[in-house]
Amino acid sequence: MQISELGERELLKRLQQFGPPGIIGDDGAVLAVPPSQSLVVTTDTLVNGVHFSPQTTSAEDVGWRAVAANLSDLAAMGASPLGITVALALPPETELAWLDGLYQGIAACLNPFATPLVGGDLCRASEISLSITAFGCVTSGIYRRQARVGDAIVVSGVHGASRAGLELLLNDQQWHDLDPQIRENFISAHQRPRPRLDLLEPLQRLKIERIAGMDSSDGLGDAVIQLAHESGVKAKLWGDRLPSPPGLSAMVPPELAQDWVLWGGEDFELVLCLAPEDAQRLLEEVSGLSIIGEMVAGVGVELQLRDRIEILAIQSGFRHF
Amino acid sequence: MQISELGERELLKRLQQFGPPGIIGDDGAVLAVPPSQSLVVTTDTLVNGVHFSPQTTSAEDVGWRAVAANLSDLAAMGASPLGITVALALPPETELAWLDGLYQGIAACLNPFATPLVGGDLCRASEISLSITAFGCVTSGIYRRQARVGDAIVVSGVHGASRAGLELLLNDQQWHDLDPQIRENFISAHQRPRPRLDLLEPLQRLKIERIAGMDSSDGLGDAVIQLAHESGVKAKLWGDRLPSPPGLSAMVPPELAQDWVLWGGEDFELVLCLAPEDAQRLLEEVSGLSIIGEMVAGVGVELQLRDRIEILAIQSGFRHF
Repeated sequence: MQISELGERELLKRLQQFGPPGIIGDDGAVLAVPPSQSLVVTTDTLVNGVHFSPQTTSAEDVGWRAVAANLSDLAAMGASPLGITVALALPPETELAWLDGLYQGIAACLNPFATPLVGGDLCRASEISLSITAFGCVTSGIYRRQARVGDAIVVSGVHGASRAGLELLLNDQQWHDLDPQIRENFISAHQRPRPRLDLLEPLQRLKIERIAGMDSSDGLGDAVIQLAHESGVKAKLWGDRLPSPPGLSAMVPPELAQDWVLWGGEDFELVLCLAPEDAQRLLEEVSGLSIIGEMVAGVGVELQLRDRIEILAIQSGFRHF
Repeated sequence: MQISELGERELLKRLQQFGPPGIIGDDGAVLAVPPSQSLVVTTDTLVNGVHFSPQTTSAEDVGWRAVAANLSDLAAMGASPLGITVALALPPETELAWLDGLYQGIAACLNPFATPLVGGDLCRASEISLSITAFGCVTSGIYRRQARVGDAIVVSGVHGASRAGLELLLNDQQWHDLDPQIRENFISAHQRPRPRLDLLEPLQRLKIERIAGMDSSDGLGDAVIQLAHESGVKAKLWGDRLPSPPGLSAMVPPELAQDWVLWGGEDFELVLCLAPEDAQRLLEEVSGLSIIGEMVAGVGVELQLRDRIEILAIQSGFRHF
């Protein structure tokens, strides 16, 4: 069944079921912001054929990833989510099953964080595009420009897994002898990335005074370059400490593995800069974090390898225009 | 010059100039919400060829109207604007002049309300679409479901002017003998609608305890039907009190004029239901408001004309699917 057969009124009713009762129906949604907290807002658009394709992404995964990208931006600001809005443009011949899948994926990613879908807009277009705006609240935020000389660079999780998952989805035949569990891990990292909102509670509990940071959605290398640049310091990374996922070194040669770890992107982990003693306290509190380098006086980013030093520069990466 | 010639980095720099310094550059924007106020969020999408066309809408007007629609939704909730985000998808061959015009229109509509553009997203697509999310803060909100039997129905401004302006833009030749000032008023009503945020201050100052309401973006008739339905009451409208713009009766026959006043849409005025004594106080405080009817026990909407009563029902109106 195509959505044009269902009609607009039924369609809206169907989608409103994904929001909490009572909150949808007015011209806007009303939400409480806890006293003495600030509002944090972030927005992100996915376009069919640009950000996703039917080959590698189911409707559920599109919904999940759009939400994950926005919640990851909130986590990167140190903000707890309050809600999201979804603006959806799509062709009338879109299958209703696709739309249902999209909203199921959105709900699946929101649910663990008890974050409501509080409103949206639905309109006709010749291609599918999806804009999500997420808002959260924060007491003391995390900003890119707050890194200082002497800071430890801490990164959550592993990097390169999402890029490896994409490779497996695009060239399945080539990797038929890969361990099935590793294959599943990589594909899941690509299709169902987890925003690191779980880190906010320990960060708050430890009462760390100053944290610089951002997420690694555009790549770990990109995040470190941005943090150093915005803070006016130089980053030194230790090549042997970069957290690559189990199985990656068995899949591709070391140089390509390093490329995926640094520039693969879409891992949605956090990259944080904080005083070394605070970094130590954080690592004792939370497992799965790594110290990958330090901030020193200067400009740019150096990667210390066994036999040489590489200077990292923004990769051409994914450019829209 | 096309935006693809400028390149993504230059493009983003150019657009960031429309935001306040310092607020753009992190993963999200941070905004203060005044203590003991709630957050209000609303979102709205415009797609080229669906919501606007080069024939009737300049880039500046697209930007203006997208912002106006969102700010009008905030006004309809009784909320003062805190900021907006803009998610823009567009083809690489879009003229840079068009993009500049869009952001100039956005800024022109935001400026009188000192409302910042705090963030956004820019991506490639095969057609232009623009999603704006606006957020505001409110002490005691305006809701659709709060109308009561006995309420006066108050409407701001005039209705039908935007529809008349659209007609003039679509069929210019047919109306060559229309008074130039009236022509200009109608076209301006269509291209540069003004969100009625100016009404919030007097509404607050009068400390009116309960106000039901919404904006008339989908038509005055539609707004009254929604308010009656959501509140479980019946609306009686007085045909001779419906506020039509000067010059409309000289332009089209009475029946068409009434149709445009009730169903033309896009006037972005407020339709409010409140106790008759509060309505009276409000009219004494603010000029340009009209009492157009009352809420009674029952269901539906009646329009009292000189010689008969019409029952109003949702028009097919603008449907996307």
